[in-house]
Amino acid sequence: MIRIGCLGAGRIGKIHGGNAAKHAKAHLVAVSDPFAASAEALAAETGASVRSAEAIIGADDIDAILICTPTTTHADFIEAAAKAGKAVFCEKPIDLTSDRIRACLAVVKAAGTPLMIGFNRRFDPNFAELKRRIDAGVVGNVELVTVLSRDPNPPHAGYVASSGGLFRDMMIHDLDMARFLMGEDIAEVHAVGSSLVDPAIGREGDVDTAAVLLKTASGRIAQISNSRRATYGYDQRIEVHGSAGMIRAGNVHRTTVEVATGAGINADPVQDFFLERYAEAYRLEMDAFIAAIIEKRPPHPTGEDGLAAQILADAATESCFSGKPVRL
Amino acid sequence: MIRIGCLGAGRIGKIHGGNAAKHAKAHLVAVSDPFAASAEALAAETGASVRSAEAIIGADDIDAILICTPTTTHADFIEAAAKAGKAVFCEKPIDLTSDRIRACLAVVKAAGTPLMIGFNRRFDPNFAELKRRIDAGVVGNVELVTVLSRDPNPPHAGYVASSGGLFRDMMIHDLDMARFLMGEDIAEVHAVGSSLVDPAIGREGDVDTAAVLLKTASGRIAQISNSRRATYGYDQRIEVHGSAGMIRAGNVHRTTVEVATGAGINADPVQDFFLERYAEAYRLEMDAFIAAIIEKRPPHPTGEDGLAAQILADAATESCFSGKPVRL
Amino acid sequence: MIRIGCLGAGRIGKIHGGNAAKHAKAHLVAVSDPFAASAEALAAETGASVRSAEAIIGADDIDAILICTPTTTHADFIEAAAKAGKAVFCEKPIDLTSDRIRACLAVVKAAGTPLMIGFNRRFDPNFAELKRRIDAGVVGNVELVTVLSRDPNPPHAGYVASSGGLFRDMMIHDLDMARFLMGEDIAEVHAVGSSLVDPAIGREGDVDTAAVLLKTASGRIAQISNSRRATYGYDQRIEVHGSAGMIRAGNVHRTTVEVATGAGINADPVQDFFLERYAEAYRLEMDAFIAAIIEKRPPHPTGEDGLAAQILADAATESCFSGKPVRL
Amino acid sequence: MIRIGCLGAGRIGKIHGGNAAKHAKAHLVAVSDPFAASAEALAAETGASVRSAEAIIGADDIDAILICTPTTTHADFIEAAAKAGKAVFCEKPIDLTSDRIRACLAVVKAAGTPLMIGFNRRFDPNFAELKRRIDAGVVGNVELVTVLSRDPNPPHAGYVASSGGLFRDMMIHDLDMARFLMGEDIAEVHAVGSSLVDPAIGREGDVDTAAVLLKTASGRIAQISNSRRATYGYDQRIEVHGSAGMIRAGNVHRTTVEVATGAGINADPVQDFFLERYAEAYRLEMDAFIAAIIEKRPPHPTGEDGLAAQILADAATESCFSGKPVRL
Repeated sequence: MIRIGCLGAGRIGKIHGGNAAKHAKAHLVAVSDPFAASAEALAAETGASVRSAEAIIGADDIDAILICTPTTTHADFIEAAAKAGKAVFCEKPIDLTSDRIRACLAVVKAAGTPLMIGFNRRFDPNFAELKRRIDAGVVGNVELVTVLSRDPNPPHAGYVASSGGLFRDMMIHDLDMARFLMGEDIAEVHAVGSSLVDPAIGREGDVDTAAVLLKTASGRIAQISNSRRATYGYDQRIEVHGSAGMIRAGNVHRTTVEVATGAGINADPVQDFFLERYAEAYRLEMDAFIAAIIEKRPPHPTGEDGLAAQILADAATESCFSGKPVRL
Repeated sequence: MIRIGCLGAGRIGKIHGGNAAKHAKAHLVAVSDPFAASAEALAAETGASVRSAEAIIGADDIDAILICTPTTTHADFIEAAAKAGKAVFCEKPIDLTSDRIRACLAVVKAAGTPLMIGFNRRFDPNFAELKRRIDAGVVGNVELVTVLSRDPNPPHAGYVASSGGLFRDMMIHDLDMARFLMGEDIAEVHAVGSSLVDPAIGREGDVDTAAVLLKTASGRIAQISNSRRATYGYDQRIEVHGSAGMIRAGNVHRTTVEVATGAGINADPVQDFFLERYAEAYRLEMDAFIAAIIEKRPPHPTGEDGLAAQILADAATESCFSGKPVRL
Repeated sequence: MIRIGCLGAGRIGKIHGGNAAKHAKAHLVAVSDPFAASAEALAAETGASVRSAEAIIGADDIDAILICTPTTTHADFIEAAAKAGKAVFCEKPIDLTSDRIRACLAVVKAAGTPLMIGFNRRFDPNFAELKRRIDAGVVGNVELVTVLSRDPNPPHAGYVASSGGLFRDMMIHDLDMARFLMGEDIAEVHAVGSSLVDPAIGREGDVDTAAVLLKTASGRIAQISNSRRATYGYDQRIEVHGSAGMIRAGNVHRTTVEVATGAGINADPVQDFFLERYAEAYRLEMDAFIAAIIEKRPPHPTGEDGLAAQILADAATESCFSGKPVRL
Repeated sequence: MIRIGCLGAGRIGKIHGGNAAKHAKAHLVAVSDPFAASAEALAAETGASVRSAEAIIGADDIDAILICTPTTTHADFIEAAAKAGKAVFCEKPIDLTSDRIRACLAVVKAAGTPLMIGFNRRFDPNFAELKRRIDAGVVGNVELVTVLSRDPNPPHAGYVASSGGLFRDMMIHDLDMARFLMGEDIAEVHAVGSSLVDPAIGREGDVDTAAVLLKTASGRIAQISNSRRATYGYDQRIEVHGSAGMIRAGNVHRTTVEVATGAGINADPVQDFFLERYAEAYRLEMDAFIAAIIEKRPPHPTGEDGLAAQILADAATESCFSGKPVRL
């Protein structure tokens, strides 16, 4: 049994802590949260004890740490946990700056402890199957990747201010997927963005509608588009075009019910929101973390994957605001 | 060039006469209609002359006759045309009674002239492709056929009175398709029907909602359902289940446009009505008739196909109103 | 907390016992199974104790019994549990004969204890949503119901022999759904069936391919078709046509992945088999049972629903083998 | 009756000339082609006479000219026809350089004669309906347009050499559609391209796989991607995301037939190629040209639309090969 401590008992802490608690080969030992009520609620639900973050990191009865705290604390907690010899699962991103991420990864490397970054979409059963078939050669050489991600509703402008901006906060998932699916690093980034959804987001200096063009050294191309609003649900689609064919993974609708009337044939809106759409992905992600630790394999996505995605998000941000492409 | 005369210049006469006129290897010589204005309009559009039905049947400059007149005249015109040595294309049905059809086919047989019956659905590109693949073995041995046909709107109750009833007027197409797709004659017919759409149809002694179970000697099963009303368009679907898989041909929508909003993902209603849905089928049907005459092959569907469908429609009518299955 | 005992720890006992054990307001106290290993495995997984069936029925620390044993024992266990004052959830069917079911229901009625029958499809989120919308009037008056159910693979002929036959073993679910969706009892049953999938099934006197026509007193019509084999997965579809439109609930595919090549656009096969397709339905079914007990409401589907479905399955069996419709 | 002359009797001349000949309010008077056999074949099919291009342009019995000749002759023929007082329909593009287009449009303006450019996709019934609904406000303010176009097979590298390159030869249609659907001119163009499909195309200095990012002054964003090869047919899709919802128009499949086996549910490949996919669009385009002349309205798309698309194609070409965005 892997003994686990969970830092943070908010929305995402409840997901990861809950999945760890239900896992057949893991035991959720302790949770922490600055809001005592949150920590106690999660502890009650899972049978864990409430401790401080520091106590969890230093505990002898804990093998692995889940970091589900605010972004600004990630790198510090990763370093502390690594130094304490713990395996770490950290929600994306490691930090909002690449320099801090590099420094953090150096500490982890020195400690020799496992680190996994929470890019949950890689574990979605649909996207994971798409990746498996690409790797199996179903579409031949990958040439053109289209990733489309639209949130149902924009966040509060106040959230945007501390989020690092759309490219680092939202598109980072799509940048990771594009890189993951092309199996090659990105050489060139063009980005454009606008504030069309909520003027308050624009006033914070951020965009809410954006698109990116990526090109790899070998000439593969990826397109990503994001919007902070989709009236029909959480729109999450990927399409990959290759020399032998095309493969795509579409949206998940609320039910399979369709109604036909004089107005047409109507299918349900797509699932709202990531907690529902990616519930199974979060479960499989925790399985992968726990399995890697048990089998003493390095977990994936790695810290380096986290750094690579951050560098792409930085480049996209720079390209969007400078109006110039960025070479990597 | 096949020289063609068209009896009847109403809705269906315009379709068949028009397709004959546009055919590269045919020439529409003359049209007739008791309503002079209809005949003249079709003649003007196609460059044909207006003549009487008798004159067309007896004409030396005409090789083939299209019978697009009211049902009650079909058998008489077929016989007259056959005796005059003409090839005949006749809209379904040959007659509303099997006895009259048998007598008519005997006359045609004696004359040795070609006769084709207008079961247009066999020529629909989707259904024709479905049949080709069944014959190619794509689904293995055919076991279970489902035919679903729903008209957008019920006819006037007055039409119903002289139509022969739903089974002979509407379901006869589906009965022909079931027989055609199973490649085997029907041994047993169970039918139920109700008047749910328009009470006036019920008062005329007819049904507007009906379903039929068919079984062949070898045990294949077919299900057909009909409604005289579908709010979402002209619903025309076929599904065939076999030992190796399932094949189906679905509806044709007005456009490929889909709209996604908070209400869901909405596709267009399906095409309204048979003149639109089966425009290409009517064209291909006329091609098949003309090609058979040119190549001196017997055209299909044959008069015997017309008789077989009528016998099934009679059996379904009897089963529906007697509450008992009919063995054939 | 509702305290639950589970009789039977086979395939379906593991599902229901497992769902009861995970329920926030229930506690799985004990399990029984003639195969000690099965009982012990389920007990180990859920924290329950292993007891005999008799001990569970007579236990003071148990409020409700889940009957997941072979069909032939259902009625006896229901009666014993009812007499012991327990609430009962029983897998369908109550028994293979209507007379035994009637006697059993009389005992339950005399005991005044709650009884729920496991027609899991009513709880499938897609079918349940379809029913909710029908009840909300989305398609107006229900006129024509089509239920289609095809198993991926036929059972062993040996299973068939003791199953009561296709209509009682397999189609009973569809008969229940047709009745449930039409909201009206069936007045007339026509059935046909064949052995096309496996000759050994035919030699046992059963059919493996069947279709049924149902009609209610008010004239509503339902069609059901079943096959014991579908090469593309567990095919489960319902379509309901009404005066204002049509509503349907389609299959659930393994993933949303589609591959486009010269061979066409290929979607995944549909989910295999009922344990996967109806996993959520089983969970919601147990929720409904436990909620009804807690809130002291009679659970649905009732014993009378179980009897009504059995009467329909008997009628379909009789119609299929006599070649005559059955009036109810 | 509008009297029409058609310059060029090749693949596209046959389409436009044929549609003009079949039009109820037009008469195809004459056709020309340097290859006498081509001109004679089209003349024979349509009843037109064969003349030289010069004779057609100078003819008294001709009101309108269809220019279906090689691109390098377009501007000269447009000017000659305009000076001769003829209405002109010209296949895209007017010329491969913007300067020549500007000079040509000046001549047309001076002549005061109508000029329509053949951007056929605007007339596709699906895309036209999509545009109508956008204009009707169905998706609110347009924010993000995705245009995807993939040819079934790459052209010969030799064709590429004289085509002006992928952006001017192929993507020009998509650039026109993006501009048309956004209803606003483009301010900024980013393009990337690669030769992944056929190395011979790369050796000619062209790309065969490309993507473009466009941004308007008000911040609307469009993404276009092109490939010279799609194994599954001629892939033509548009998706428009707005403040109130999303609208898209998908591919047209060869038939509606679907086959379900253990390999999944397989739909037909999409239609091959533009002559089939856009047959109806070409017909409606000719209707629009003839209607505009009869009703003395300026036809659309205009010469200015042709120029605007060319400027975008030039900008995309420049951006692709310079690696820098182009501001307009």
